[in-house]
Amino acid sequence: MTKLFFYPKTIAVIGATEDPSKFGNAVTTNLLDNPNLEAELFPISRSNDKIYGLQAYKSLLDVPKDIDLAIVLVPAKVVPFIVDQCIQKPVKRIIVVTAGFGEINEEGKQIEQEMARKCRAAGIRMIGPNCVGIQNVDIGMNASFIQSPIKGNISMVSQSGSFGCAMIDGMRWNNLGLSKFANIGNGVDLTFDEILHYFKEDENSKVLSVYTEAVKNGKSFYQELKAITPVKPVVVLKGGRTQAGMAAAGSHTGSLASNYTVLKAAVDQSGAVMCEKMEDYVTALKTFSLLPLPKGNRIAVLTNSGGAGVLYSDNAEEQGLKLAPFSDSLIEKLKPYLIDLVQKVNPLDMIAGANEDTYYQVTKVMLEDPEIDIVIPCGVYPPFLGMKFENNFSGMIKAWNETGRKKPMLPLLVFGSGYEGVVDLAIKENVAFFSTPHEAAYATKILIDRMNFLLR
Amino acid sequence: MTKLFFYPKTIAVIGATEDPSKFGNAVTTNLLDNPNLEAELFPISRSNDKIYGLQAYKSLLDVPKDIDLAIVLVPAKVVPFIVDQCIQKPVKRIIVVTAGFGEINEEGKQIEQEMARKCRAAGIRMIGPNCVGIQNVDIGMNASFIQSPIKGNISMVSQSGSFGCAMIDGMRWNNLGLSKFANIGNGVDLTFDEILHYFKEDENSKVLSVYTEAVKNGKSFYQELKAITPVKPVVVLKGGRTQAGMAAAGSHTGSLASNYTVLKAAVDQSGAVMCEKMEDYVTALKTFSLLPLPKGNRIAVLTNSGGAGVLYSDNAEEQGLKLAPFSDSLIEKLKPYLIDLVQKVNPLDMIAGANEDTYYQVTKVMLEDPEIDIVIPCGVYPPFLGMKFENNFSGMIKAWNETGRKKPMLPLLVFGSGYEGVVDLAIKENVAFFSTPHEAAYATKILIDRMNFLLR
Repeated sequence: MTKLFFYPKTIAVIGATEDPSKFGNAVTTNLLDNPNLEAELFPISRSNDKIYGLQAYKSLLDVPKDIDLAIVLVPAKVVPFIVDQCIQKPVKRIIVVTAGFGEINEEGKQIEQEMARKCRAAGIRMIGPNCVGIQNVDIGMNASFIQSPIKGNISMVSQSGSFGCAMIDGMRWNNLGLSKFANIGNGVDLTFDEILHYFKEDENSKVLSVYTEAVKNGKSFYQELKAITPVKPVVVLKGGRTQAGMAAAGSHTGSLASNYTVLKAAVDQSGAVMCEKMEDYVTALKTFSLLPLPKGNRIAVLTNSGGAGVLYSDNAEEQGLKLAPFSDSLIEKLKPYLIDLVQKVNPLDMIAGANEDTYYQVTKVMLEDPEIDIVIPCGVYPPFLGMKFENNFSGMIKAWNETGRKKPMLPLLVFGSGYEGVVDLAIKENVAFFSTPHEAAYATKILIDRMNFLLR
Repeated sequence: MTKLFFYPKTIAVIGATEDPSKFGNAVTTNLLDNPNLEAELFPISRSNDKIYGLQAYKSLLDVPKDIDLAIVLVPAKVVPFIVDQCIQKPVKRIIVVTAGFGEINEEGKQIEQEMARKCRAAGIRMIGPNCVGIQNVDIGMNASFIQSPIKGNISMVSQSGSFGCAMIDGMRWNNLGLSKFANIGNGVDLTFDEILHYFKEDENSKVLSVYTEAVKNGKSFYQELKAITPVKPVVVLKGGRTQAGMAAAGSHTGSLASNYTVLKAAVDQSGAVMCEKMEDYVTALKTFSLLPLPKGNRIAVLTNSGGAGVLYSDNAEEQGLKLAPFSDSLIEKLKPYLIDLVQKVNPLDMIAGANEDTYYQVTKVMLEDPEIDIVIPCGVYPPFLGMKFENNFSGMIKAWNETGRKKPMLPLLVFGSGYEGVVDLAIKENVAFFSTPHEAAYATKILIDRMNFLLR
């Protein structure tokens, strides 16, 4: 069971140390730094009796309890010996963080295959080698040498450890939290597909995300995606879409130019979302993590900046979307909140004087309108008349809250001086916002695509 | 002369007030807030003798000095009367900020045309109506109701005031400064092209930028661009590229679908850069403002994250760029600074342990190599071993400084926890950095395109 990797009751850190220049220290402190960790820790150290106050053991075999998960951080040359000890103990699951195996030469490849073979023969599953580790935020377990994310409903499997690391940061800034994270490195035993399969079953994982550079078994990957997408949205980013990218990823096999085209077609067919750019990947996660699906494709836009409305319209059309014409009844309901200068058309340019109350009233009228499915309140920072960016945002959120957050609302807040306040408010209220016209239009498109996929 | 708008010796603010709920207040305080303003201010107020300690005059005609620039902020109905007074005085230049003319109805169109006609007959030039105003950061003049930018070498003309406002903020975050800014609103007298023409002559304007929604005279715009591009780079963003965007911009005339295609072809042909997205617009400004042009198209990439190198390679190929193979002599020079695990290929994945000194040494070797023209040091936040994001960035900058900043260096620093330190360092050292693989690859492409354009 893959689940045991994420829910161990006992963890041994082999190569635990207080020396801050070692990866063994990063994993040890990451595990210890979370006071809510629901697992018992056993540091294994050849040179210390205590590690950060915890009793340390010279050998895994000295630990007086059964070990669910062993994390291996010793130098590459010692790793096969330690894996043998893990089998002898026996532990149930192993993560080999140490690098210097199949990714550097043929001898490394043989050694890692031999370790995997022994583990399988003993009924033990292994992640790695050459990985940053895994995380389960739900039980406060950071069994990796990278930083802890905030808690949320996204689960991510990343072929690149450092990319996962960068994404955890980007997600934090976007107020996006993780449930589970895994980087499987060389992946000699446990596969990408097995982790996805587990995330499908895991009830805390509401949105799945995948960064891959080389799909080893296209057919099984496709089958897995196809099984998940009716239940949960899956967002995929492929590093190595081009010949140059594939070469950089060290994937020299197969038909380089066609691989991405084939993979993209398969991902599209499966109902998962294939992103072309890193920016879109974060946007897609934000969208599925924080917004409900629409019931239709009728979009309404309001703005305090004509330019923002124009640019959203451009990007929406490029994504194949159409703004809905306003009905006469909607126009009548809008009138009390708008000055005469304002043309009552979609996108609705409320001009620069629009304030918090204008945003609140107009957004609410649109969210309540039976002929509107999706509302895009746009704003630029209003550096005059004592107005604050976050106040206008606050008006939008109030309208969304009062209508039960039933329809997707995608605030497009073009980067501006009041952004700290905007970010704080987004976190406090747990709402999504978008910083560029492209981002908001892309988010709208994937919501509509997913609605249509589920209706099929 | 358009120059006098930007370098007035005397300015009258007609409709100056201490009431913070009025745009007249925003312009007054923006002008007063800059202690270095090299112009004398004359507030005109019907109700106050003093405005923020300055003597105020009941009428423009009472001012005992000649007025170079009058800024008009009175209600729309009074504007024609005030413009008549400006002609009577006479002032030399007029900016009408007040809205409510040609943009709302036919009557407004006639009134604004009549004002323009009178001004022209009197030899007076006018900007507006319905604009946010203009700025000349070089003399500390913010004659607008939007915020002041930082000082720099970019000059911008924007058809949308609020978009200009958002860009000033986005530029500040990217450490980009302005020399001059103009929003001409309904543009009944002074045109877009005239402002561009002036920016071409202005020696503090090194990079020109244009946001337009409807080009009134395509031929003259093209001729102006064509005259500027051999001297200065010009970056263009067009709001209303699609039918939906054009409709939103209120430009219902002409062949909607073809307009953008034609305009884009003309801009491309002129040697200016036409951006498809707002993100690209900021990236292009950053690139031309802060980086030298390359002498060739040979790109070298170094990274602490395989994923970042792969994604840069993908985006570079999509932009039509190629990474240069490393020469044997370059590989020899790199070896002392890299561990054996590292494959000496381009992109160079120095793996996660690469620190400040590694970045410094490797970046420097690449910048000094005669067969490399452009260096892309990539990094993700290294949340382990006590390393800091800005330290790695610092290593890159040291290498760039020691090689005289002769070749373009484009740091790709994927968004991460140490970003505050990165931003601070970028501002202190006045260097560009890029946050996504697309952004860095796009910047590389437009540098090479401009080099090729100037070589033609």
